Amino acid sequence: MAPPSPRLVVPIDLKKKPWEQKYPLHNRWHPRIPAVAEVTEGEFFRVEMMDWSGGSIADNDSAMDIKSVDLNIGHYLSGPIRVLDKEGVPAKPGDLLVVEICNLGPLPGDEWGHTATYDRENGGGFLTDHFPNAIKAIWYFEGIYTYSPHIPGVRFPGLNHPGVIGTAPSIELLNIWNERERKLVEQGPSSLKICEVVHQRPLANLPTKRSCLLGLINEGTSEWEKVAIEAARTVPGRENGGNCDIKNLSTGSKIYLPVFVEGANLSAGDMHFSQGDGEISLCGAIEMSGFLELKCEIIRGGMKEYLTPMGPTELHVNPIFEIGPVEPRFSEWLVFEGISVDESGRQHFMDATVAYKRAVLNAIDYLSKFGYSKEQAYLLLSCCPCEGRLSSIVDVPNAVATIAIPTAIFDQDIRPKSGRVPVGPRVVKKLPDVLRCSYDGDLPITQNLSKNKED
Amino acid sequence: MAPPSPRLVVPIDLKKKPWEQKYPLHNRWHPRIPAVAEVTEGEFFRVEMMDWSGGSIADNDSAMDIKSVDLNIGHYLSGPIRVLDKEGVPAKPGDLLVVEICNLGPLPGDEWGHTATYDRENGGGFLTDHFPNAIKAIWYFEGIYTYSPHIPGVRFPGLNHPGVIGTAPSIELLNIWNERERKLVEQGPSSLKICEVVHQRPLANLPTKRSCLLGLINEGTSEWEKVAIEAARTVPGRENGGNCDIKNLSTGSKIYLPVFVEGANLSAGDMHFSQGDGEISLCGAIEMSGFLELKCEIIRGGMKEYLTPMGPTELHVNPIFEIGPVEPRFSEWLVFEGISVDESGRQHFMDATVAYKRAVLNAIDYLSKFGYSKEQAYLLLSCCPCEGRLSSIVDVPNAVATIAIPTAIFDQDIRPKSGRVPVGPRVVKKLPDVLRCSYDGDLPITQNLSKNKED
Amino acid sequence: MAPPSPRLVVPIDLKKKPWEQKYPLHNRWHPRIPAVAEVTEGEFFRVEMMDWSGGSIADNDSAMDIKSVDLNIGHYLSGPIRVLDKEGVPAKPGDLLVVEICNLGPLPGDEWGHTATYDRENGGGFLTDHFPNAIKAIWYFEGIYTYSPHIPGVRFPGLNHPGVIGTAPSIELLNIWNERERKLVEQGPSSLKICEVVHQRPLANLPTKRSCLLGLINEGTSEWEKVAIEAARTVPGRENGGNCDIKNLSTGSKIYLPVFVEGANLSAGDMHFSQGDGEISLCGAIEMSGFLELKCEIIRGGMKEYLTPMGPTELHVNPIFEIGPVEPRFSEWLVFEGISVDESGRQHFMDATVAYKRAVLNAIDYLSKFGYSKEQAYLLLSCCPCEGRLSSIVDVPNAVATIAIPTAIFDQDIRPKSGRVPVGPRVVKKLPDVLRCSYDGDLPITQNLSKNKED
Amino acid sequence: MAPPSPRLVVPIDLKKKPWEQKYPLHNRWHPRIPAVAEVTEGEFFRVEMMDWSGGSIADNDSAMDIKSVDLNIGHYLSGPIRVLDKEGVPAKPGDLLVVEICNLGPLPGDEWGHTATYDRENGGGFLTDHFPNAIKAIWYFEGIYTYSPHIPGVRFPGLNHPGVIGTAPSIELLNIWNERERKLVEQGPSSLKICEVVHQRPLANLPTKRSCLLGLINEGTSEWEKVAIEAARTVPGRENGGNCDIKNLSTGSKIYLPVFVEGANLSAGDMHFSQGDGEISLCGAIEMSGFLELKCEIIRGGMKEYLTPMGPTELHVNPIFEIGPVEPRFSEWLVFEGISVDESGRQHFMDATVAYKRAVLNAIDYLSKFGYSKEQAYLLLSCCPCEGRLSSIVDVPNAVATIAIPTAIFDQDIRPKSGRVPVGPRVVKKLPDVLRCSYDGDLPITQNLSKNKED
Repeated sequence: MAPPSPRLVVPIDLKKKPWEQKYPLHNRWHPRIPAVAEVTEGEFFRVEMMDWSGGSIADNDSAMDIKSVDLNIGHYLSGPIRVLDKEGVPAKPGDLLVVEICNLGPLPGDEWGHTATYDRENGGGFLTDHFPNAIKAIWYFEGIYTYSPHIPGVRFPGLNHPGVIGTAPSIELLNIWNERERKLVEQGPSSLKICEVVHQRPLANLPTKRSCLLGLINEGTSEWEKVAIEAARTVPGRENGGNCDIKNLSTGSKIYLPVFVEGANLSAGDMHFSQGDGEISLCGAIEMSGFLELKCEIIRGGMKEYLTPMGPTELHVNPIFEIGPVEPRFSEWLVFEGISVDESGRQHFMDATVAYKRAVLNAIDYLSKFGYSKEQAYLLLSCCPCEGRLSSIVDVPNAVATIAIPTAIFDQDIRPKSGRVPVGPRVVKKLPDVLRCSYDGDLPITQNLSKNKED
Repeated sequence: MAPPSPRLVVPIDLKKKPWEQKYPLHNRWHPRIPAVAEVTEGEFFRVEMMDWSGGSIADNDSAMDIKSVDLNIGHYLSGPIRVLDKEGVPAKPGDLLVVEICNLGPLPGDEWGHTATYDRENGGGFLTDHFPNAIKAIWYFEGIYTYSPHIPGVRFPGLNHPGVIGTAPSIELLNIWNERERKLVEQGPSSLKICEVVHQRPLANLPTKRSCLLGLINEGTSEWEKVAIEAARTVPGRENGGNCDIKNLSTGSKIYLPVFVEGANLSAGDMHFSQGDGEISLCGAIEMSGFLELKCEIIRGGMKEYLTPMGPTELHVNPIFEIGPVEPRFSEWLVFEGISVDESGRQHFMDATVAYKRAVLNAIDYLSKFGYSKEQAYLLLSCCPCEGRLSSIVDVPNAVATIAIPTAIFDQDIRPKSGRVPVGPRVVKKLPDVLRCSYDGDLPITQNLSKNKED
Repeated sequence: MAPPSPRLVVPIDLKKKPWEQKYPLHNRWHPRIPAVAEVTEGEFFRVEMMDWSGGSIADNDSAMDIKSVDLNIGHYLSGPIRVLDKEGVPAKPGDLLVVEICNLGPLPGDEWGHTATYDRENGGGFLTDHFPNAIKAIWYFEGIYTYSPHIPGVRFPGLNHPGVIGTAPSIELLNIWNERERKLVEQGPSSLKICEVVHQRPLANLPTKRSCLLGLINEGTSEWEKVAIEAARTVPGRENGGNCDIKNLSTGSKIYLPVFVEGANLSAGDMHFSQGDGEISLCGAIEMSGFLELKCEIIRGGMKEYLTPMGPTELHVNPIFEIGPVEPRFSEWLVFEGISVDESGRQHFMDATVAYKRAVLNAIDYLSKFGYSKEQAYLLLSCCPCEGRLSSIVDVPNAVATIAIPTAIFDQDIRPKSGRVPVGPRVVKKLPDVLRCSYDGDLPITQNLSKNKED
Repeated sequence: MAPPSPRLVVPIDLKKKPWEQKYPLHNRWHPRIPAVAEVTEGEFFRVEMMDWSGGSIADNDSAMDIKSVDLNIGHYLSGPIRVLDKEGVPAKPGDLLVVEICNLGPLPGDEWGHTATYDRENGGGFLTDHFPNAIKAIWYFEGIYTYSPHIPGVRFPGLNHPGVIGTAPSIELLNIWNERERKLVEQGPSSLKICEVVHQRPLANLPTKRSCLLGLINEGTSEWEKVAIEAARTVPGRENGGNCDIKNLSTGSKIYLPVFVEGANLSAGDMHFSQGDGEISLCGAIEMSGFLELKCEIIRGGMKEYLTPMGPTELHVNPIFEIGPVEPRFSEWLVFEGISVDESGRQHFMDATVAYKRAVLNAIDYLSKFGYSKEQAYLLLSCCPCEGRLSSIVDVPNAVATIAIPTAIFDQDIRPKSGRVPVGPRVVKKLPDVLRCSYDGDLPITQNLSKNKED
């Protein structure tokens, strides 16, 4: 008869640091990070999370915190949570852990978020060769809506989701990760054709003790030393889920995660108020603290039953996601296209990354005709509910990628019209703009060749 | 007072060959292909089109026509159509041509289509290293629905769209295309890292007189010889639109096409009853003959106003699309993820093409657990309304791509469930399968390493 | 291998009268009207239909045809169609006939429709006491869209549907209909409280030989005389389906119709390009000729299994409908409310009809502030895709009904805004208006009391 | 820089009674109930509310609290809230108050609700002649989802909304209400035809001092005595909004309320987790405590500008609502129809209330074939997101009303199928049922005549 309020299994106190929390956070993947809580199949429970940076990025008037941030801190995760079945038997390697997102949102009293792109020498972003400066915008939440004092003229409902959610890897899987990523770094950018187009660096983030936080394993212990040196960074999505950044993974969704260690050891963090497909500016969603209200189920032996290893071992699998019916629906979209020809006019072969880069550049430039700065458009396309699609991946030599923007988020009609782009008071007046820092490096900046000619 | 039935400006007689039509078709892009019709801004008109192959692929019991097809024939297009404003002044280079799709569909009496993948030695497809055989499935239409005798257990409403729609390039733009694509071919696959993952060949299709059809320019004339040798192939999407394969470009959509030649010279073809994002099997949509009912508008000077050159010249632009509210909406999706680690376990850097390949392989294998052959799943994901998304393009080193499949198209519940995959009568009974040919080449086939170990 | 084009079982020649068609139409319900075609369960077939009036209402510049129309002609139906199972056994009384609408639309070459309200002395409409004149608007179709020269500033996609679709009644059911409706007429309006609010007359349309058309039964025969005198009019929806006017009954829908006679004897007609809930102006949808592409299934014994008699006999049932996923979706609605207090300020008890009347009056008056005449708004709300809802039916004494209008159909923003209703060129200029006739009767017209005071 | 968390203007302590709250609640409409808070145009604020009964209905194992409830208590409202513009000038009579719902939901720690119907002698419901007993079901919330231990097999996302939201009436408007409702009561049921079909009583709830709560006006004062005797009950929706029960009035909606007194004096309460159109069982939504997060705007002179008096005075207006894009969307609906023929087979004239009653009875009976008791179906259709539509209101003599049920809320496929209704373990096993009391009155119960014959 008692109402089934979710049981709070991981609380967060926003006035404390990640390592001061009741259950200290972790920012690495490793099987030996101990579980901080236990939940039972079918139980309705709540997990709270700090933002990815553990409070390092502030609601202030400067992007300096973004420029100088130590990226080894990300992402601070809550958990791990050990999952048992109704008889108390923990999830086992080979099982599938079903996680249903029943609800999620910002933490009360902390209704704001940030969108940013890093300095080109410190993380950058998808378009870092075009936008080398650290820039930042703050977003405030009005219930399900958000608006930014730095990007006026836009307001939209959020499709909240956890950027990072995953199970702990086994040692075997961890070794696979570390080995393949190390190999990539060792070969270096010159070995990679795509690096002529994607300028973001480093190539991968290898394990490092720097800023490593390991939950209940205390720094300075020998266990900490051992684990820190081999624990995987949380930056990329991998076989255990992790930083998938699937923007529609919101209320009503289910995630089918492979289980690699006893108890599954579920961790989550990097809450997003909203994100566009691709999260192009890297710190690109509306980053916030938040909560998840979850239910778990264990499908015994489900990995073999439902997942397909696609690689040299049985561990080369990926999670499956089920997207539910509960999300804002937009009825009209403006779509920008890119083909795999880069800014220099060079033809690439079926390269969806190049194609998406061009689509995004087209969209940014288009929006800049309506009174937005290009930096505003860059951050906006990172965090608003736009869709990035692989429209054609077979018509040699051009991959065709598109980015679709819901027109309803703007307070003006952004569709092309006969006659010139309408210029009204809002467009003409000097707008507020994103917060920005100088770029002090000397890496080359990609020019829009055609534009240069013109001006 | 007369009802505004669309004026039929390009009729098709399906009993005739492409070159026998009242207005002979063309399968190349060139500014000198003469317009076959004129329409006025605001006029409501109808264009009919043969399927991409001009009737070469038949509704029969064999995939031999696919195996041996001459790919130089594609795509047979209707047009070009010259567009005038209400004063009779033609569209001019620098204008934007707005094309509204008011209606579209199959041609009456021809309510069927085909989905196929080519032999690895003759065009292949996105997964040609996994599926080297020519395979084919026939689809029949029941109004807005389609079903295939070769892929039982699936039925879905079509989101009809023209695979190819575009304006004629200017000579200058044509030269840019030919030059950049020729350069790619000359460098050869060994220069391209992506070719270790994307095995589809050739790298590009350069101009060729073989099977070239140029509308009102008669073969054998000196004009034909001159144009045929430099006219661009219609395979890839490019600056003029062309083979964009945007699956949502259906009724209620608008396309904003750049105008490169006087009159715009609009061409269209390659009608699709339905397509999945990526059109992965190459001949991957449900290919059909069909009609478009259109209205055009001219935005004078619109290229400069709305499009952004993104490359060395003012011609390096892309069209903009507006997707309308009229489409079947699905409320539940099953999502498969891929990361940029290939089948051998090798780490690639931010490669969305690799990531999407792995997502699609995951999805195919998953569907094969529900009684479909992998070939059925491959063709199904090519043509059903699935969405291919670039979920994360910044989290080094892994691009994350997803493919989302609407669950409502299946006659069984394909979601993971506790216990084993349900096996019922439909699953157990020997199903019909796609039509397939032998693969007689000797190019290596990509194995699923893990699977091999297991079996 | 032959493509399954729908088999045309009832063709229509629009140059002929209803009685001159290959299979002459009928405008009455009676079990003895002979079937004109047979279809088999699972077969994909096509039925063509004249508009409700059999071509009596023309695309011209006058509403005189509406004013003087003989309402005994409606609705001209195609059929009846006899349905057999795969063994050739006809549907039997007690079965359920499943009719799937696979496709539907206007007849080629006849892409226009009309919306009208009748003269108060000849049929009227829901608001005939406010709008006693015969008025008419013509709509033209541009593919899935429609616009009217008489109601400028509005354009919307149609949700085509058959206004009338049903099975033939048995003699027993026919007698029930005739008896209960005759009783109503005999008691007269003075016995009905609702008639103080709903002024439409007559109370019911009883059988009449006038303008009666009975398909294959030739006028003048004794069979004709016998059937004509007892055949039910097609005006209201009844136990056999009939004139249900369910606006969402479009592609992808299924109808589960009770079977009362051997073979089911399915008839259909009264095609609508679009309709608002309630079809308030009576001739209120966009009335057109059209086609249906259908598939049937027989559920043996399904009436008992699925339908519930709700009345004195087993025949007092209603069909069930299944609405599919294929329709234009609007994301924003403006909603007008009405309560069961009438124009004189009098309180009615839980009367949803009164509440809906007030909601509609509110909406009409609101739209008139944006440059539409009230007659334009009345016809528009009859035919555009607006939703009429019963929001509360329990909060004594007020029933609350609402009418929700999708804002996207207007070319201006019709939402309330700070400041006055915007007045632009389009609003100020003298608009075209609906076609209208004089009202020559002397029935009293309901005044908006408050308005009168004000002016 | 401070994050714009909503300012909590009306807090609720669920451990206290309505009259013990910091700002005591009120359950009547009267202009002299003093405002308890002030908000400024554009400010983002939060209002908390008890459930309609102020905690009288409990999460327990009995419906006795429903049977014996004193209906004079409803609805306990929070407020009134006085609204000022940015210069501090209050809203004025004749203005329009725009209220945007930015967020809403249950109160933390109170995640449950109840759905019920009253005893026939104490309030009843739409079908009280069929269901005279007091019955009750409890619902628990799992984030956005709800399920009931008393109605197993159903789970759905809630579309939370305030059942009651409105501005204070002026004395003049209050007098209009009291007079018209008193007249109805005085005439008595025998004067009303509709009372042969709608058996709910009383006809109206006139002002009464019994259980009257007036916010800051203390009981026992002369002011209390004066106001209590003339303050309007909150049961019906009226010109000021009030108990509109518009189920889609959820996040992203805007309400345009007429202002009748200085400051507008906005009140709200009767929070619903979910409701079906019509709220048929009267206590029919999932009733809960909850919060609203709102923003207000004042449109000066907006009543005249946007609202139309529809009655004898300028005060006979209704609010306007704008429904936003944020709600769960269902792609498939099962639709039940009713016509204005009652259970005895009697023909009514265009009576939408009768038609909706029959539609609902059809739906209840249908659901009972799938293992639900009729009481379960009755409560379910009251509170699940079903749509009640006025499909046709002009086809004499039958109004056609429909109720559409989203099929996705059931854990079984409830569509009709060939063969019998599937009977599985869940259907066969003895289900839990709603909580119910005996009916001890002697009012006649409406029988399904046909069913009686059959059994």
